[in-house]
Amino acid sequence: MLDQVQNDDVTAVMREIGKRARAAAHALAIAPTAVKNRALHAMANAIEADSDDILAANRKDVAAARENGISGAFINRLELDAAGIAAIAEGIRAIAALDDPIGDTIAEWDRPNGLTISRVRTPLGVIGVIYESRPNVTADAGALCLKAGNAVILRGGSDSARSARAIHTALKAGLAEAGLPEDAIQIVPTTDRAAVGEMLAGLSGNIDVIVPRGGKSLVARVQSEARVPVFAHLEGLCHIYVDKSADLDMARAIVVNAKMRRTGICGAAETLLIDRAAAEKFATPLIEALEDKGCLVRVDHDMIDYARGRDEADDTDWTTEYLDAIISVKLVDGISGAIEHIGKYSSHHTEAVIAEDHEVVARFFNEIDSAILLHNASTQFADGGEFGMGAEIGIATGKMHARGPVGVEQLTSFKYLVRGTGQTRT
Amino acid sequence: MLDQVQNDDVTAVMREIGKRARAAAHALAIAPTAVKNRALHAMANAIEADSDDILAANRKDVAAARENGISGAFINRLELDAAGIAAIAEGIRAIAALDDPIGDTIAEWDRPNGLTISRVRTPLGVIGVIYESRPNVTADAGALCLKAGNAVILRGGSDSARSARAIHTALKAGLAEAGLPEDAIQIVPTTDRAAVGEMLAGLSGNIDVIVPRGGKSLVARVQSEARVPVFAHLEGLCHIYVDKSADLDMARAIVVNAKMRRTGICGAAETLLIDRAAAEKFATPLIEALEDKGCLVRVDHDMIDYARGRDEADDTDWTTEYLDAIISVKLVDGISGAIEHIGKYSSHHTEAVIAEDHEVVARFFNEIDSAILLHNASTQFADGGEFGMGAEIGIATGKMHARGPVGVEQLTSFKYLVRGTGQTRT
Repeated sequence: MLDQVQNDDVTAVMREIGKRARAAAHALAIAPTAVKNRALHAMANAIEADSDDILAANRKDVAAARENGISGAFINRLELDAAGIAAIAEGIRAIAALDDPIGDTIAEWDRPNGLTISRVRTPLGVIGVIYESRPNVTADAGALCLKAGNAVILRGGSDSARSARAIHTALKAGLAEAGLPEDAIQIVPTTDRAAVGEMLAGLSGNIDVIVPRGGKSLVARVQSEARVPVFAHLEGLCHIYVDKSADLDMARAIVVNAKMRRTGICGAAETLLIDRAAAEKFATPLIEALEDKGCLVRVDHDMIDYARGRDEADDTDWTTEYLDAIISVKLVDGISGAIEHIGKYSSHHTEAVIAEDHEVVARFFNEIDSAILLHNASTQFADGGEFGMGAEIGIATGKMHARGPVGVEQLTSFKYLVRGTGQTRT
Repeated sequence: MLDQVQNDDVTAVMREIGKRARAAAHALAIAPTAVKNRALHAMANAIEADSDDILAANRKDVAAARENGISGAFINRLELDAAGIAAIAEGIRAIAALDDPIGDTIAEWDRPNGLTISRVRTPLGVIGVIYESRPNVTADAGALCLKAGNAVILRGGSDSARSARAIHTALKAGLAEAGLPEDAIQIVPTTDRAAVGEMLAGLSGNIDVIVPRGGKSLVARVQSEARVPVFAHLEGLCHIYVDKSADLDMARAIVVNAKMRRTGICGAAETLLIDRAAAEKFATPLIEALEDKGCLVRVDHDMIDYARGRDEADDTDWTTEYLDAIISVKLVDGISGAIEHIGKYSSHHTEAVIAEDHEVVARFFNEIDSAILLHNASTQFADGGEFGMGAEIGIATGKMHARGPVGVEQLTSFKYLVRGTGQTRT
């Protein structure tokens, strides 16, 4: 009912969107920093000026979702209020305040023949963002892609379609005010799922990378079907290893924070590994500290002596991202045992080691291949903002191009500029 | 006839190769630099020690190819002699001499909460290399991947299968001598084309990137069918733009070198663009200089006054990578015209501008999006060795991860190491 196009037009509509995005990307690639920032500030202002329209559209989305029997966390993610609008506008201004990565010289060196070679950042091109119910992704993703000189094609969930369109109207107004092409930020005008299929196929070469934002089933579909690169993580099955050399108070504070600060984010810890050599010292205090905060603890069979009466973990626990106040706990044979367990079960997102023994930390850092490894700090720092990157469009666990938080810098490519004085090759 | 496996076993054999490669990659990822270099030196020594076997195998390949009616450049690429063997061994030693990128800190910064974040290089994982007749690729690719801590699966052409296997035997001896897993460098034991299909499908997640080395039809197949990232260029349709501000002598030397030094390489110039405002000054001298070196010149209709009697270029010339002593020449309306033509026809590989006007150079560098842009230098410098990267496994025109020459550094990923003192997130 919200759709502006007929189903059988989806392919044609999407191809046209792709072509327009590519044309806009060419213009954005050479847009000066000041013009991009002017657009971003105008977008933030328009979001505030349009707040009544955006809130009205959002109320309709929320009402429709409730009619469809949706409730709970989903409505929370969907619902906007005045503070939410203000946060969106401030988020865009924060992106305007970031350094422009485009044109940055990443490396520069001279050759014996007198050539000077430099490697400078360029935009990636066209980013496709496929997301679910959070209306703010429309603004965050649009602004972040623009800052890095990329065009973006946004495909939001049908439940937040009215909100997304109202926000998109404000973004377009900002682009127009700065004289940038409105096609720089396009929103797919249909909720037909075939549109997602077209995006995953790459729109005839007019999408360079896809960023899915949403639950595991969305990300799984994107990862399995996409014919273009994807920046994503399927899950954050994050581990904490507490070594026998750890400080107990520090371990307690970090474990509780890593699990319980927010249980629903990808950087939340899901499995606690304790050095068998210090089980007596750590197991009971850490389990009790977690339980004090309301966490359900599922323990491996061989540590039941330290955790009588608790649920026993089975093999599925080591592969489960609870995203809830539940943790699995296991004894391992020191750092080697931790490395082995993490190597087997990790989603390559984020892992932490709590230890005072520097050899242990060195092995953890060297031998584990996850996007983010922390020493004596909470896994919940796995976040572009906490890394000082400003906004992030997501966290990637792949090893190609972007890994870890995907901020403005990760949305760029580069080219080589070679300066000569008449050199020819012999 | 050379195949060691039956056709119907190809899937099973390839999956097993993938698993072994992944296991080897885990071992290589933590192999110390000294061990990797010891393996490389042992490989080079083994290549020299086995030179009789390698040359005998190569003679059989060459004889079989001739029996199949193959001749000319193909045989040239296939045929090895004692100097070729020495060059392979020296190539491996040169890779041993390169800095090890693994573990390098690319960036490091502190956060206000006391966390220190560093970004360090890690191996990519498993590289699949699909190549044609050059036997040296077996050694070059194997050594380069090893240096960056990656396992490699090599699939050479059937015409060079005996040579590749003989070289591979030497590489395995080197790995064994250093105590590294022989599966670090595997060669596909069948010439069944289905094996390529299995590699392009990613071997159940056990290939991280594919590098095709060969002609356009091989690269095209890989690019269209691969379900994993590809580092490649389909073609090098390289342009030179001579601005009215150019120095004539410099332009002449560079244009002749860019086209004629070696006509069959991807960095050879294919189209010469001349500023219409200085056609009188440049057109005839540049055309005559090219013709003096034996180049066939195909000129655009509107410059026929400067090139009477030459072939007229048609629309197909602007999209043709001749890889031969042929060049297309066109007048354009200054730097804007050059940017427009290159934007329309470029393969995004390498382009050069010859100019003394810095505004012109700045626009060329800023507005053209190719992997390599040169000012007052020959396009034939588009090469990892010339860039000072040591060996290269190819040149990529994609914008994801690697772009331009793909050397040892481009075969790496990275991870974030975060060092704390007990930080938790508020």
